[in-house]
Amino acid sequence: MDDRDLLTRVQAVIGHAQTLDDCAVLPHGGEYLVATTDMLHETTDFPCGMTGWQIGWMSVAVTLSDIAAMGASPTAVLLAVGLDDPERLLSIMEGANDCCTTYGAELAGGDLDAHRELTIVSTGLGHVAPEHLVRRKGARPGDVVAITGTLGEAQAALEGYGQHRQALLEPQPRLREGIALGRAGATAMMDISDGLALSLYDMVAANGCGFAIDTDRLPLPAGVPEGEARELALHGGGDFELLFTCPKELLPVPDVEATIIGRVTAEPVVLASGRVLERRGYQHRW
Amino acid sequence: MDDRDLLTRVQAVIGHAQTLDDCAVLPHGGEYLVATTDMLHETTDFPCGMTGWQIGWMSVAVTLSDIAAMGASPTAVLLAVGLDDPERLLSIMEGANDCCTTYGAELAGGDLDAHRELTIVSTGLGHVAPEHLVRRKGARPGDVVAITGTLGEAQAALEGYGQHRQALLEPQPRLREGIALGRAGATAMMDISDGLALSLYDMVAANGCGFAIDTDRLPLPAGVPEGEARELALHGGGDFELLFTCPKELLPVPDVEATIIGRVTAEPVVLASGRVLERRGYQHRW
Repeated sequence: MDDRDLLTRVQAVIGHAQTLDDCAVLPHGGEYLVATTDMLHETTDFPCGMTGWQIGWMSVAVTLSDIAAMGASPTAVLLAVGLDDPERLLSIMEGANDCCTTYGAELAGGDLDAHRELTIVSTGLGHVAPEHLVRRKGARPGDVVAITGTLGEAQAALEGYGQHRQALLEPQPRLREGIALGRAGATAMMDISDGLALSLYDMVAANGCGFAIDTDRLPLPAGVPEGEARELALHGGGDFELLFTCPKELLPVPDVEATIIGRVTAEPVVLASGRVLERRGYQHRW
Repeated sequence: MDDRDLLTRVQAVIGHAQTLDDCAVLPHGGEYLVATTDMLHETTDFPCGMTGWQIGWMSVAVTLSDIAAMGASPTAVLLAVGLDDPERLLSIMEGANDCCTTYGAELAGGDLDAHRELTIVSTGLGHVAPEHLVRRKGARPGDVVAITGTLGEAQAALEGYGQHRQALLEPQPRLREGIALGRAGATAMMDISDGLALSLYDMVAANGCGFAIDTDRLPLPAGVPEGEARELALHGGGDFELLFTCPKELLPVPDVEATIIGRVTAEPVVLASGRVLERRGYQHRW
């Protein structure tokens, strides 16, 4: 069983709409609040050798990335920290606070707990004008599909390509890009933390339409043989780039470095250079 | 080292004001948003024999209790669930959803993860008009100090008094009471999840004044010998009652069952029937 199977069960309890996006969307005043929570822990999320500062930074960055994926601006982050060793706390908090400060959020509070395994849950809050909110659902056949930045770098680092280690350990959430894309009129968006392929299938599920991507267009990690680089770009996890759709004439959006990798199709399948793309990437399994 | 020592270190990074209350307070529009996060996990928080439904209920209840302590109304809860066994998820989500529904909040989303030990982090959001917000700081010498409901029931259940088991396993956050007390003009408030004694010392730290309580006035758990009942009421954890201060003439507040247990004093000490109260209760330790 994987986490997407489980999500289907959760939908039976709390409803389908609550689980479709990177963030919950809560109307408040004339605006939308967005809220998201992410659990990270030592054995599955923090690669060996990571510093406390990097652990704190990453814990906040993954949450801010979800806020970016809605076209929203972050306001506050709460951090619940289950500590195996209390000596680790200070550097974790410094990394978390630095990530908040870099992206304009306030580290507003949290919870401390003793835990056998270092476990961090960061919760992010943001806000966005209703007309600038971008959801996963909204893609239209004929739109192009595009991606910010470079694909596969985090997984490349895990495979031993040391030049990509910073991309793995200190991910940079695409907040500026997400906000700009929301204002420009992107039609659908999500981040690709579980890999491009799984994310495209999530987009199929949300939209009921499909995607035809051209693997020659994928922005590949530098210094990796091309075949391996393409595999990492399609199926590697740990990248926090934004996958989005929009009318072709919308691009380029000023200040957003993005690559068109394909187009939205009517049929709900994912094709990579004409062949059905394998639905494989990073998943929690039990 | 305990969690209150650690909190002092965190304050050096993120600031003192961010850690003083049960919730973070975030101005938004003309209102205050309040936000709080709580980590619970199997070995320290879920007594043996607890059902999945009760685990889900409790995980939400502890968070809603923090919202109640600010005089705020809950709006949404996010649940990050680290599962040892995926079969546990459905009943946990049902309990969580039932607790949300009971108290007027929406279970708006969350995160799923595989974890060696069942670990749940619930994050609650609420809102309150600025004039009805109650903080831990605000107590004034001469105010009375009072408590909702009954003390020591959860700890009594842990000590084997089965008649209090529901209080332990299915805590009822005092939302109606918190909102009514905020509107009525309570001057300071917090919930007492780590026990009355520790909470009074937290109030001393926030307020710079002290408390003189009369142990004969404590609302004790039924069916427990008096000496033991008083110990449980002072130092037992797991109760989610509201401890608050207000001018004496404010009480009774309609629809709020509360007991005056003492008064606020100028000197920053906690006295129980004239003797300094031991600073002891539920604390996470490493």
